[in-house]
Amino acid sequence: MVGKPLVSIVSAGLSKFGRLDGMYCREIFAEAVKEAFEKCPNLDPVKDIEALFVGHMGEAYEHQGHTGPTLADWAGMLPKPAVRIESACASSGIALRTGILAILSGLHKIVIVGGVEKMTHRTTAEVTEFLAMASDLPFEQWHGITFPGLYALMATAHMHEYGTTEEQMAQVAVKNHHNGTLNPKAHMQKEITVEKAMASKVVAWPLKLYDCSLITDGASCLILTHPDLAKKFTDSPVHIIGSGQASDTIGLYEREKLTTLRAARLAGQEAYKMAGLEPKDLDVAEIHDCFTIAEIIAYEDLGLCSSGKGGSLVEEGTTELGGNIPINPSGGLKSKGHPVGATGTAQAYEIYLQLTEQAEERQVKGAEIGLSHNVGGSGATAGVHIYRRE
Amino acid sequence: MVGKPLVSIVSAGLSKFGRLDGMYCREIFAEAVKEAFEKCPNLDPVKDIEALFVGHMGEAYEHQGHTGPTLADWAGMLPKPAVRIESACASSGIALRTGILAILSGLHKIVIVGGVEKMTHRTTAEVTEFLAMASDLPFEQWHGITFPGLYALMATAHMHEYGTTEEQMAQVAVKNHHNGTLNPKAHMQKEITVEKAMASKVVAWPLKLYDCSLITDGASCLILTHPDLAKKFTDSPVHIIGSGQASDTIGLYEREKLTTLRAARLAGQEAYKMAGLEPKDLDVAEIHDCFTIAEIIAYEDLGLCSSGKGGSLVEEGTTELGGNIPINPSGGLKSKGHPVGATGTAQAYEIYLQLTEQAEERQVKGAEIGLSHNVGGSGATAGVHIYRRE
Repeated sequence: MVGKPLVSIVSAGLSKFGRLDGMYCREIFAEAVKEAFEKCPNLDPVKDIEALFVGHMGEAYEHQGHTGPTLADWAGMLPKPAVRIESACASSGIALRTGILAILSGLHKIVIVGGVEKMTHRTTAEVTEFLAMASDLPFEQWHGITFPGLYALMATAHMHEYGTTEEQMAQVAVKNHHNGTLNPKAHMQKEITVEKAMASKVVAWPLKLYDCSLITDGASCLILTHPDLAKKFTDSPVHIIGSGQASDTIGLYEREKLTTLRAARLAGQEAYKMAGLEPKDLDVAEIHDCFTIAEIIAYEDLGLCSSGKGGSLVEEGTTELGGNIPINPSGGLKSKGHPVGATGTAQAYEIYLQLTEQAEERQVKGAEIGLSHNVGGSGATAGVHIYRRE
Repeated sequence: MVGKPLVSIVSAGLSKFGRLDGMYCREIFAEAVKEAFEKCPNLDPVKDIEALFVGHMGEAYEHQGHTGPTLADWAGMLPKPAVRIESACASSGIALRTGILAILSGLHKIVIVGGVEKMTHRTTAEVTEFLAMASDLPFEQWHGITFPGLYALMATAHMHEYGTTEEQMAQVAVKNHHNGTLNPKAHMQKEITVEKAMASKVVAWPLKLYDCSLITDGASCLILTHPDLAKKFTDSPVHIIGSGQASDTIGLYEREKLTTLRAARLAGQEAYKMAGLEPKDLDVAEIHDCFTIAEIIAYEDLGLCSSGKGGSLVEEGTTELGGNIPINPSGGLKSKGHPVGATGTAQAYEIYLQLTEQAEERQVKGAEIGLSHNVGGSGATAGVHIYRRE
């Protein structure tokens, strides 16, 4: 059967994304959980939820690890099992996958998966250093390269091999900033132009300020259950019909090519196969645009176009709202923001809204099939999920 | 059926525990994995292993997060999914539980679970600070209390309520140091006396140096598969027949009692129930003796004696090798060492050896049923597993 559900999403929540001064991770996460419970009044937060799997990338930001029970406590879930997953910027995408394992295992019937990060109280230098822990210590960190530099290597390789241009990368930013203006929870609510993006400060050539995603605070969550139980809680569940995860070398130096993320390709292939679908079947997708080049590479890795054609895809408007396959209607990491641990399930939250017709001004009309694509670090982890509406 | 297997352990590995100068986590973990593969020649490391779940507590020690794919790479497992679990000192106990979910889910047939930590290259002050991230930031860390202090609060509460003595705590240390002399991989290989322990430097009264576990480097792993497949790989699998996990408040200040860890009690009850067994059925157990008082409290939480009788249990010799229920034959965290992320699956490794008659001088004769008890931080996470031999 095409699209046999693995698990079903019966509710979801997202905190405001942005600069959330004076809040701890536990408080931000509680905001996301509150929305999920409010949207699903048939669910008893204390009795029904059996476990929590939460993505949290860095204990350094808050000097607080052991995040699982900390968040479970503030969300009213004690004494249920609560686990932190760390897969760099794919932490909550992998927490989602772990929640799927938990439901499929039969040991749990209803679980929360989610993610959280508090970053804006730190200086940019601190955030850059903490993020760098997700790259290779002996062969990357020690030599002073940080994530903008790593993605700049990918960008220059892509430009060299395929003729991708700085303007095409800027067009990703323009598109995602536009989408962000339609999302009240997005960090940035600002249209930009290609000219403005091109003129912005160089961070690591060819990547400029507007090629980089945002340092953001935020949290996200989903409530998952067995497909047979979903209708007990909601009339409009969203089913997860494909889940793929793969790994790659942590260091770029070990890879055959810099113009593709092998883990993302493999995760996508696994998810499509499980779902019985092809790229052309997608109606909407949230893609890991930590840098604009990452979105272009992701188009290719996910089969939305052939290798080298990602730049043209955005240039032609195919991935705009109203285009053939709208990508990042939420605004993406670029404009909605990138609280690293929260990003994976924030992508899933957007797909949940889209497939339940709750995405308001940015609704992709009649969307039935969605995909989320979450990448850790420079691609050593990737998780891809495919969703369909009831 | 009593003891219906959830999953089966077909092999296991443990690095040397101790001061492993000049080695990265990835290298230490590879040492553990190498042993597991050498012990199970029917298993093809590249083809057969489908996923890795690894406990790693602190990215700060090595300035290296994103541990899952990093370890998977060095262990020859790419591009398989690889996930880091962080549940403080229970990280690999919870990685084990996650691996069980993965097998039960049907998405994976054979997985590796394990854990790793590299700590000894850091100063004691640094290690103390990094460990403290697993306690509560606003209500514990900020006030300067670290883990010896938190467990000292539990110890004084236990002394006050039940009359537990410093000598009884010292006896835990003496017992575990003795066991450690029988374990060639243990960090410490040294007998101590109650007098020596009592005379050692006070760390946080009533806890003295010999009441505290060791700062250690090390890694551990298990290879898990579906019980129906186990005999394909080994004639002597060990079956996991019970798995319990629970959470509690991260801060001690929120708890009703300091003389028990509620999460450990609940996790134990869940594991016993799943296994269809009672405490009296156990032949051997590895218990989370991060401090000597923790082992005494664990006796009570696991039902090996009634509340308040833990001190007497060790005093009477019941938990010695040769006693009625030998506890920590490996030497425990106290003498084998406590590379925090590796501890949970290192406990399981010892139980695996005991139930397959591979524990040499410290073998508990005829052991058929074992238990491991892994605690995160001051008890906000606990994972308990019960094992039986084929």
